[in-house]
Amino acid sequence: MKKSLIALALISTSALADEGMWMPQQLPEIADQLKAAGLELDPSALTKLTEFPMGAVVSLGGCSASFVSPQGLVVTNHHCVYNSIAYNSTPENDLLANGFLAAELSDEVSAAPGSRIFVTKAVENVTDQVIDAATAKLTGKARVDAIENNYKAIVAACEEDAGHRCSVSSFYGGLEYYLIKQLEIKDVRLVHAPAEGVGKFGGDTDNWMWPRHTGDYSFYRAYVSPEGESAEYSEDNVPYQPDHFLKISQEALNEGDFVMALGYPGRTNRHRLPSEVQDTFEWSYPNTVQRFRDNLDIIAEQTAEDKDAELKYASRVAGLNNYMKNRQGMLDSFADSDLLERKQAEHKALTAWVNSSAENRAAYADDLKAIETLLAERHDEARENYYRSLATPRLLGVAQALYKLSQEQTKPDAEREVGYQERDLPRYKAYMAGLDRSFDVTVEQAMDFYNLKNYLAVPAEQRDATFDKALGLKNDMSDAELRALIAKWYDNTSLTELATRNELLAAKPSQFSDSNDVFVSAAVALFPQQQAEQDEDEELSGKIQQAYANYMKAKIAYMHEQGQAVYPDANSTLRVTYGTVTGRDHGTYDGTAWTAFTTLRGIEEKATGEGEFNAPQAQLDAIAAKDYGDYYVDDLNSVPVNFLATLDITGGNSGSAVLNGKAELIGLAFDGTLDSIISDWDFNIDNTRSIQVDSRFMLWQMEKVDGADNLLKELGLQ
Amino acid sequence: MKKSLIALALISTSALADEGMWMPQQLPEIADQLKAAGLELDPSALTKLTEFPMGAVVSLGGCSASFVSPQGLVVTNHHCVYNSIAYNSTPENDLLANGFLAAELSDEVSAAPGSRIFVTKAVENVTDQVIDAATAKLTGKARVDAIENNYKAIVAACEEDAGHRCSVSSFYGGLEYYLIKQLEIKDVRLVHAPAEGVGKFGGDTDNWMWPRHTGDYSFYRAYVSPEGESAEYSEDNVPYQPDHFLKISQEALNEGDFVMALGYPGRTNRHRLPSEVQDTFEWSYPNTVQRFRDNLDIIAEQTAEDKDAELKYASRVAGLNNYMKNRQGMLDSFADSDLLERKQAEHKALTAWVNSSAENRAAYADDLKAIETLLAERHDEARENYYRSLATPRLLGVAQALYKLSQEQTKPDAEREVGYQERDLPRYKAYMAGLDRSFDVTVEQAMDFYNLKNYLAVPAEQRDATFDKALGLKNDMSDAELRALIAKWYDNTSLTELATRNELLAAKPSQFSDSNDVFVSAAVALFPQQQAEQDEDEELSGKIQQAYANYMKAKIAYMHEQGQAVYPDANSTLRVTYGTVTGRDHGTYDGTAWTAFTTLRGIEEKATGEGEFNAPQAQLDAIAAKDYGDYYVDDLNSVPVNFLATLDITGGNSGSAVLNGKAELIGLAFDGTLDSIISDWDFNIDNTRSIQVDSRFMLWQMEKVDGADNLLKELGLQ
Repeated sequence: MKKSLIALALISTSALADEGMWMPQQLPEIADQLKAAGLELDPSALTKLTEFPMGAVVSLGGCSASFVSPQGLVVTNHHCVYNSIAYNSTPENDLLANGFLAAELSDEVSAAPGSRIFVTKAVENVTDQVIDAATAKLTGKARVDAIENNYKAIVAACEEDAGHRCSVSSFYGGLEYYLIKQLEIKDVRLVHAPAEGVGKFGGDTDNWMWPRHTGDYSFYRAYVSPEGESAEYSEDNVPYQPDHFLKISQEALNEGDFVMALGYPGRTNRHRLPSEVQDTFEWSYPNTVQRFRDNLDIIAEQTAEDKDAELKYASRVAGLNNYMKNRQGMLDSFADSDLLERKQAEHKALTAWVNSSAENRAAYADDLKAIETLLAERHDEARENYYRSLATPRLLGVAQALYKLSQEQTKPDAEREVGYQERDLPRYKAYMAGLDRSFDVTVEQAMDFYNLKNYLAVPAEQRDATFDKALGLKNDMSDAELRALIAKWYDNTSLTELATRNELLAAKPSQFSDSNDVFVSAAVALFPQQQAEQDEDEELSGKIQQAYANYMKAKIAYMHEQGQAVYPDANSTLRVTYGTVTGRDHGTYDGTAWTAFTTLRGIEEKATGEGEFNAPQAQLDAIAAKDYGDYYVDDLNSVPVNFLATLDITGGNSGSAVLNGKAELIGLAFDGTLDSIISDWDFNIDNTRSIQVDSRFMLWQMEKVDGADNLLKELGLQ
Repeated sequence: MKKSLIALALISTSALADEGMWMPQQLPEIADQLKAAGLELDPSALTKLTEFPMGAVVSLGGCSASFVSPQGLVVTNHHCVYNSIAYNSTPENDLLANGFLAAELSDEVSAAPGSRIFVTKAVENVTDQVIDAATAKLTGKARVDAIENNYKAIVAACEEDAGHRCSVSSFYGGLEYYLIKQLEIKDVRLVHAPAEGVGKFGGDTDNWMWPRHTGDYSFYRAYVSPEGESAEYSEDNVPYQPDHFLKISQEALNEGDFVMALGYPGRTNRHRLPSEVQDTFEWSYPNTVQRFRDNLDIIAEQTAEDKDAELKYASRVAGLNNYMKNRQGMLDSFADSDLLERKQAEHKALTAWVNSSAENRAAYADDLKAIETLLAERHDEARENYYRSLATPRLLGVAQALYKLSQEQTKPDAEREVGYQERDLPRYKAYMAGLDRSFDVTVEQAMDFYNLKNYLAVPAEQRDATFDKALGLKNDMSDAELRALIAKWYDNTSLTELATRNELLAAKPSQFSDSNDVFVSAAVALFPQQQAEQDEDEELSGKIQQAYANYMKAKIAYMHEQGQAVYPDANSTLRVTYGTVTGRDHGTYDGTAWTAFTTLRGIEEKATGEGEFNAPQAQLDAIAAKDYGDYYVDDLNSVPVNFLATLDITGGNSGSAVLNGKAELIGLAFDGTLDSIISDWDFNIDNTRSIQVDSRFMLWQMEKVDGADNLLKELGLQ
């Protein structure tokens, strides 16, 4: 929690059409552009979070979604509900493979533990409360502590409105802070998901790719108490009735048409310092790619003969694959680009500007120098602790979280660290409950072995003696000895049991100290050092926050002087981005281009009857029979499946409603193409294309293949 | 030879721009269209075969080519000289792999035996001589014999001009006949070929495909006697000085630009009868594809460990792969098209028109009915003899050709069958000489086993008793027995020796009868039946010629009545086709399109360092160094490699000069894309694209990679 509070949301230029993840309240500033691009709605309508259409747009925490019926029906991506499908799947009843359709409300099943639907109710600038006069004078850890205290007070006051979840987000690199208030819907149920051969058609092979033919849509439903309040799951709960919901378009959509995406983009880094770019692309990403690849190999090997374990790790495998391809894509784009050189040139220009007047020098010069030193310090630390930071067994991480929670719970709630307050307990509970469904001892032991072997390869003098001692690690352990040690841990822990984890959720610190559980004991032994490291980290973070905010202030001032408008970098808050449906004049390979739409023909082309391209036979039959219904498009001589647009999106936008100029839902954003992923760092309109599932495909599949007549009726389409 | 004389060259509509393989003399008829499309030259200039630019265009017999220097330098496709490169290759000096560049004239090496350069000197309508008043009254074999006698007389008279080769070609389905007179250059030498990793880059994988990156160009030189006459190879020979040669363009070429191809398209079948379409696509092509696939497997298996044998069959493997992909491509396109239904509808309309008036009925009705019966008869025969026709061992084929030649040579030259006259002897000689370089006993035995096993699977009563007896084939032979029989043949033949073959080239029939050679004896035994079958075949051919010509006459009359102009189907004679440089809005896969040009980037993308994508390191280095020289194109940010155009070409056009509006050479046609191959039967401008190697790539490769400065100088470019 602390990290995300201090984390830096940066700024970017808004000179280019199609570029920009706009805060809703900024839209009137670009009203002319929006109108010219094709928005038929009054742009100011989009600034009202509790009105149509913004009132229909929700967050799933990591994904975006939207209400599409008056009975709380929510549409989002298949990959956003993947966990919930997996959670309800068993080897005997494999919902991932077969899809799921609740025939009526009583057939709807609980989403995975911890699933939430967040409806943004208010956004308020609280900069002056977060960095009040007293805080502004502080530095280092004291500054971090003060910001955190202010943050907690603001959030606590906000959350006095029961059933709501509040958070404070940093904008413009810590220059501004906004309070986001969201209705938190806790009873989320799975309504409909197509078969994996539709919802994940193309799998990891097609992920980040075009041409694409993925039916990446699914439906949740929000449930509340009979009184209409946010409530935990109960049989008595009833569908939530949203104030607004989106209508699915029955209009044509063509290349060149205006579209906009409403959602919660996670993070962009378009104005990072050159040193950060270099560290990321030359050290961090290459290491991550290698590690994820190794992890995938381990999981594949360990689950090869174990369908149950395979299902447990299905979601993690999907995530690892997704991230690995993402990072590799960025690395490839980076290798082909002059990003670092441009960054360096820009930074040189900024530095020259800062030094061009006594006033600028006085305002920014020190921080401009300081930020480089501070970032270098943080980079060095990260490298030093790299292997140790990865070597923590998953159950040790659980024990550390539980022990820290126990320690914090000895304090009054308001004094506890952010992330360890009463309001955070349900998430811990959900995490403890859900662990069993994503945990297999054999797989975890293999992962531990891999991570610890890497760590033990670090020269003894650079290793962490406390960590070694707590876990019983020794110099020059043979593979067999290491494996034996790891096996022994799992013989001497009961954290694999939900009962134990739940018991510890409410336990006092002394119960941890008295425990013989190997991971609990290690957590206790590591705690003092962990706290000390956190203090050091906060000291550095406080300094960085201060210097970085001022560096960004310099940068904004400089850009304004150049006549360049700015929008804040993405930070998981509600944004609007607009663009057009557009193919690309250069495709994946030299000599090819991309058309804006794919069609059912591509499904036939790719279908193999197995693995990642296992299109359901009923779907192939409908295609072969040319049973297009109302969804046929003349120009395409088929039904559109996915389409490309110039929408400026990133991770977190998954599931975002994509609307036409009349604010009707015409698709769901679910991906970007591989060489546009680098747009998180460097937006390039020539390459950047978002990928959407066309609502016409969704409806076709629901009507012609999956027989989801009940939902089509609820959507008002039958 | 007989077959090609009687073979049918059909007609097509000329309504569409870009469609049409025009006889040069027809061009004034479409002068307006040519001008509008972008031809800057006076169209009537193109009708003069001995003037610029047509005078520079030559045939290699199966490929097209053109003179590009005053010293007889000829440019064509790499795949058109492939045989000659293979012929000069040895395991120690693998010119295919390494490429070849003669530093000076004396380094130029002889092309493969039988290589020829034909320069068209005159085209004359000789219909009234081929089907003179007496012939017009004949039918069946008598008609064929009469046509053949007339043909021989016309050709003999023409060839009295020494050093020339003459032929009579059938146009408009046997309605018209033209005499083609060509200067025959017999001393052809290989001057330059890039490495196979350039000239055949992409191999069979990329064949018929886009995007394409093949440097499919090479150079021959024409040599003549010091007196300037056509002459067999001699050290004393000198480069031929053509009256005209093409200039290589230094101008830009862009999408949308006018281009035209001058060359010798082999055969199109755009107006075949529905029954012919059905027979071809539902029986003939599927069988061919299966057989070629099996043959390739056999060759691959037998040459896996034998580099020498592999080289011997390299050309055949290339040819089989090419044809197989071609036929399969047509089959795929046919499956996706309504060609047969359209043909049937058109034929129904034609039939209705024929029956719509007493005059039409009297003129055409009988032949319209007769042609169906006659074609059905021919189809039935082909099916019946299918496996036997394929089961002839290659050396038996050689023996049969030699024996037939010997038999014919007992007659005065003028009375001999077409194809067995004095003028044909050099080709036999060349064939006999070249056989050693494409023949391996182990491979041939494996092929014989495959073919004969198929034949022996035919029920005994449907087999050919004479054939069985001549070869010693028996019912229910085991695989081992069949293999032993085949092995025994090769122990009892000396046709594997060039000396034997050459001896038999001049032998009397009695020498064949006296021979103990197993294949020679079989050829003698089979001869009477072979002659009888030929008589039957000619009887049928004569009837078909007559009925088919009248069917086509009906069709032309009908089309003219519809206001549709006609051009003759391709028949290996000189044609002009024009179009534009154009990509395609639908690519190989759903969701993709094709750009008009590929670039050096694609070579980098595809290069694997081995096999079909073995781009030379020197080339990759030049690309990596962005050493583009004068060939850089701004829009492409690279050097163009291949480009697409809407040119209406087919097999035989390979190597055709592709000219811009100023008649400068801008590229060489070398392929069509897979789903445009069906245009041989059914031209479809939406799909049909010809593939050209861009002259800028050729010059870049010659200058920057292969150091062919001497040739660049000769081309007037340095």
